[in-house]
Amino acid sequence: MVIVMKPNSTLKEISEVLKKIKELGLKPHVSKGKERTIIGVIGRSNANPELFEAINGVEKVVRILSPFKLSSREFKNENTVIKINGVEIGGNKIVVMAGPCAIESREQILEIAHTLKEMGVKILRGGAYKPRTSPYSFQGLKEKGLEYLEEVKKETGLAVITEVMSSEDVEKVGRVADIFQIGARNMQNFPLLETVGKTDKPVLLKRGMMATVEELLMSAEYILSNGNQRVILCERGIRTFEKYTRNTFDISAIPLLKKLSHLPVIADPSHGTGIRELVSPVGKSAIVSGADGLLIEVHQDPSNAISDGFQSLDLPMFSKLLSELRAICNAIGREI
Amino acid sequence: MVIVMKPNSTLKEISEVLKKIKELGLKPHVSKGKERTIIGVIGRSNANPELFEAINGVEKVVRILSPFKLSSREFKNENTVIKINGVEIGGNKIVVMAGPCAIESREQILEIAHTLKEMGVKILRGGAYKPRTSPYSFQGLKEKGLEYLEEVKKETGLAVITEVMSSEDVEKVGRVADIFQIGARNMQNFPLLETVGKTDKPVLLKRGMMATVEELLMSAEYILSNGNQRVILCERGIRTFEKYTRNTFDISAIPLLKKLSHLPVIADPSHGTGIRELVSPVGKSAIVSGADGLLIEVHQDPSNAISDGFQSLDLPMFSKLLSELRAICNAIGREI
Amino acid sequence: MVIVMKPNSTLKEISEVLKKIKELGLKPHVSKGKERTIIGVIGRSNANPELFEAINGVEKVVRILSPFKLSSREFKNENTVIKINGVEIGGNKIVVMAGPCAIESREQILEIAHTLKEMGVKILRGGAYKPRTSPYSFQGLKEKGLEYLEEVKKETGLAVITEVMSSEDVEKVGRVADIFQIGARNMQNFPLLETVGKTDKPVLLKRGMMATVEELLMSAEYILSNGNQRVILCERGIRTFEKYTRNTFDISAIPLLKKLSHLPVIADPSHGTGIRELVSPVGKSAIVSGADGLLIEVHQDPSNAISDGFQSLDLPMFSKLLSELRAICNAIGREI
Amino acid sequence: MVIVMKPNSTLKEISEVLKKIKELGLKPHVSKGKERTIIGVIGRSNANPELFEAINGVEKVVRILSPFKLSSREFKNENTVIKINGVEIGGNKIVVMAGPCAIESREQILEIAHTLKEMGVKILRGGAYKPRTSPYSFQGLKEKGLEYLEEVKKETGLAVITEVMSSEDVEKVGRVADIFQIGARNMQNFPLLETVGKTDKPVLLKRGMMATVEELLMSAEYILSNGNQRVILCERGIRTFEKYTRNTFDISAIPLLKKLSHLPVIADPSHGTGIRELVSPVGKSAIVSGADGLLIEVHQDPSNAISDGFQSLDLPMFSKLLSELRAICNAIGREI
Repeated sequence: MVIVMKPNSTLKEISEVLKKIKELGLKPHVSKGKERTIIGVIGRSNANPELFEAINGVEKVVRILSPFKLSSREFKNENTVIKINGVEIGGNKIVVMAGPCAIESREQILEIAHTLKEMGVKILRGGAYKPRTSPYSFQGLKEKGLEYLEEVKKETGLAVITEVMSSEDVEKVGRVADIFQIGARNMQNFPLLETVGKTDKPVLLKRGMMATVEELLMSAEYILSNGNQRVILCERGIRTFEKYTRNTFDISAIPLLKKLSHLPVIADPSHGTGIRELVSPVGKSAIVSGADGLLIEVHQDPSNAISDGFQSLDLPMFSKLLSELRAICNAIGREI
Repeated sequence: MVIVMKPNSTLKEISEVLKKIKELGLKPHVSKGKERTIIGVIGRSNANPELFEAINGVEKVVRILSPFKLSSREFKNENTVIKINGVEIGGNKIVVMAGPCAIESREQILEIAHTLKEMGVKILRGGAYKPRTSPYSFQGLKEKGLEYLEEVKKETGLAVITEVMSSEDVEKVGRVADIFQIGARNMQNFPLLETVGKTDKPVLLKRGMMATVEELLMSAEYILSNGNQRVILCERGIRTFEKYTRNTFDISAIPLLKKLSHLPVIADPSHGTGIRELVSPVGKSAIVSGADGLLIEVHQDPSNAISDGFQSLDLPMFSKLLSELRAICNAIGREI
Repeated sequence: MVIVMKPNSTLKEISEVLKKIKELGLKPHVSKGKERTIIGVIGRSNANPELFEAINGVEKVVRILSPFKLSSREFKNENTVIKINGVEIGGNKIVVMAGPCAIESREQILEIAHTLKEMGVKILRGGAYKPRTSPYSFQGLKEKGLEYLEEVKKETGLAVITEVMSSEDVEKVGRVADIFQIGARNMQNFPLLETVGKTDKPVLLKRGMMATVEELLMSAEYILSNGNQRVILCERGIRTFEKYTRNTFDISAIPLLKKLSHLPVIADPSHGTGIRELVSPVGKSAIVSGADGLLIEVHQDPSNAISDGFQSLDLPMFSKLLSELRAICNAIGREI
Repeated sequence: MVIVMKPNSTLKEISEVLKKIKELGLKPHVSKGKERTIIGVIGRSNANPELFEAINGVEKVVRILSPFKLSSREFKNENTVIKINGVEIGGNKIVVMAGPCAIESREQILEIAHTLKEMGVKILRGGAYKPRTSPYSFQGLKEKGLEYLEEVKKETGLAVITEVMSSEDVEKVGRVADIFQIGARNMQNFPLLETVGKTDKPVLLKRGMMATVEELLMSAEYILSNGNQRVILCERGIRTFEKYTRNTFDISAIPLLKKLSHLPVIADPSHGTGIRELVSPVGKSAIVSGADGLLIEVHQDPSNAISDGFQSLDLPMFSKLLSELRAICNAIGREI
């Protein structure tokens, strides 16, 4: 159940509502917006809405039937727009986050960052901590990688998105990252979700490769219900029987998520396909289906990349994608 | 192995090649194009290409490593364009085939046909034979449905695509259909593929809901190797664990099929999603990713449709889709 | 709805029921058992059971909520037992059907048939018609294969199970086969199901590699509702993301099918795993979980088999499996 | 590459080998067994085995082609047997770990523990930390649950297995747990795997619901390569399109894991099926296919369980399963 307060509701009226919620043995989730305050009532409640409608300052009481509450369109109808470094995610303008899979060296990340900045990119991706199937594979430069990212930020003014793999690293990674990336394998790492949920930094939450759309929203709910409202959903392909592609990019998930939730939706066609030639067509498709932006692996020399080279765009391919995106955004009434 | 003859090669030179193929215990597949003749050599062959290169009139000999031969880009580099009733499928112009899931009555199909024609549709879809999971569900009007389709063709001049479910029905359905539709459940009904492969009518082959991209191409190969070169591939969603949607539309399959094969590729976002609101975004995405056209369920009154009503567009939604497609085609350099 | 007649109900009483069914615009499905007659009422009916309970000779009226009717335990509580050539399928005794994937030559099939007979096998498997992904692969000996099978039957007295791939072949295959096998790719070839449903020969229906348990039962319903009550269900593995095995054998499907349906259930661990070493452990597991028998690929020389050699047991492995099955059957109170 | 030292090899000989490994830029993994020392060489090496074979004390040098090294049968041929509280896991005797999904109260866990002990159970399962899809579901009693488990251990002498969800909790949970359980959602939580890999406590590693068999072994490798050799693999069902069951129990994975790896394999048919009636048939099947034991959810009152009640056995069902397992173990030459 969600209680929408009137625009001019007073603190006293709000605390009246909270008191009633506690009396019923339920938990409140207070969200203070620019215009009005919205209070989520959490708990298996069959409480009579009239109990709240009678309180002064309450405009309406909405029952939310879906298992996801705070992420649902029922809870909040208008799109959530997240501002980072002057960039808006979830608004009319498409966002392209680009960069290498992994930070490989100081030189590599500085070079690509400068190049991407010149191409108009505002948010740089790059992994310092890399989850790898094998313990014998390159695991990322870790702290060293974070240092390089910090230097890149100072030099270029770019915002950065980078993965955090464990609760213990949240503080450390958070000192550099403008957006926390939660990887597909950690979509149901609930302690990690709770920890980033207690920060106020945007979190890009990738759909697990076996997760349903509903489970993705339930994981978003872990972050939202811990107080952090700045969640970005990311479709990055699911696992199926098809063998040509690394994953099967679930294009339907994008309009579906936009319909079910007010949160911004980003597409990652690099992991979603795993094949360089498919990244651009699938990326453009994602935008046409309603995505608010793309997360793209770009490398100055993909054939020598330490990881994910086969799915990284080189600079000419990325440049071509950007110009094609411009034409498409124009056709569908979005900006880039 | 594929033998490409010179443009001016003579019948005598061609028969020389065929003789050599038979001598080696292999089987030829002759494809006479406008400009030149191409001869496929079928059989587990390690034959020396030089044996053929030495024959007069042979321009080059190509080994095809992929398990699909006649459908591959290695066999034929330029796109196959199929002409039906003045419409080209596989060319620069996008094709939209639309109509109801099932033919429900004479009035219903005539009405929708006229309406769609006015909206610019050139190819009408409509099932007379309906494969249904349950024997207790509506199985289509069968022969009666074909009669109505014939009347529609005479009245409107529209071309029609309709499903054929069994070898025995190929002749009967072929008297009315301009394009045979092979449904997902029949993608590996090999006797049926062989039978339509012996006709000269275009065949739209739907990907099975459990089929890999390679298996789809191998099924196309059954039609092609029986002599019918007019095959249209169709992506219509695969089965995954996701429960919101009826199927998971595999957007990557479209650029992948266009890369691997010269055959036209059509997308069916109606079955690919199973939810009306998702049909348009996924359909537009398919075009952006390289599809040559769409197959769309449209019904004058979806809530009273006998089958698939929940995934059928109504006329205003379909009209909106068409105008959005126009803008997108313009942006990507294709016509509609 | 299913109407159970009293043991001593008369023809007149039965025709009274049928009359009432037709009056209500519904269709009857009459099943005359040894002891009593059961009448299925087909159609989306909310008819009041009391309308039938009032008729003389009616013992009880059962509503069947599941979409599968005639195959359900609600329709028929006791196990269906199918007798072929002195063998009972679905009774307490386990049945092992064994033989090569394909009939390769007269000598091969005669030799293996004699050997398997000596080992106690009563039902020989062997394909004359082979559904193959590629048109360029061995497609079976077809008519020649059926001739060899006929010779084998005369010489050895074994019953045979062999695949039928198309409605047109049902008569021809039926002259030799004791059991029709419907392959996984044809589980939803509805015209074929209807054709074998009109014969009185047992049909082993394999689960499609993408089919749910419910869909398997719905396909069985196509056979049952056409009059043929002798349907045997077969679990043979489904398609998943796992790459080591050819398919993922769904062991849960066996107790689930036995719970939902009265039909016999056979396991095919050869296709279910695709790896020789896994056939025996999975086959034994299937029996422990409740299967009524196994369908096993056995070849005298697997490494030279024309098809499926990698998943065929050789004779010593098969002999070992039989003796292990004996010990297990003993432990679980079943015979072999 | 794995270097097997002779039984009487000296420390000096071993350090000679280690020196050579470092010279080549590779990393050693030393495993000192009762009889001999085995040294794994980690890194993408094409080093000549002869370089090591020439060193005194080296018996043989084995190349390991599979991506999993320390968990492979090539590395260690004999079964790993893990001893806990007098119980051996991985030996000839089958182990049954049983108990409720979650610890619900002091009384509940004490009562079920006493009952299970009387039935012969030696290892109690029970979750104090519960990973739940929804943040609004019961998350376990956490520290309080651990306290109750400790009391149970003192009172009954049972060993306990309980889940650890985060690196930060490893120490705390490790003070009570005899076996760490890593849940399916955490199979690729690499920081957690590394942390338990640095303890010497047995770890039961559940296969992720989207994980291939190879990925499970790669995750085991994270624990093994951090020094903890006491890893138990657990099959608990994977996610497929089938809707009747919660997961599809992959029975083939059991003989496959036993073939590829020396580690013990446990089956969890409770999560593997999600339906009470299927737990016993699938559990017995798992034993017949080669599993070393079962992990079973048992509750004194399943219909009032806080979580997973629908898949928990009640006491009479569990008792029946134990006696059926006895008969089966007898038939297959294993003890219980």
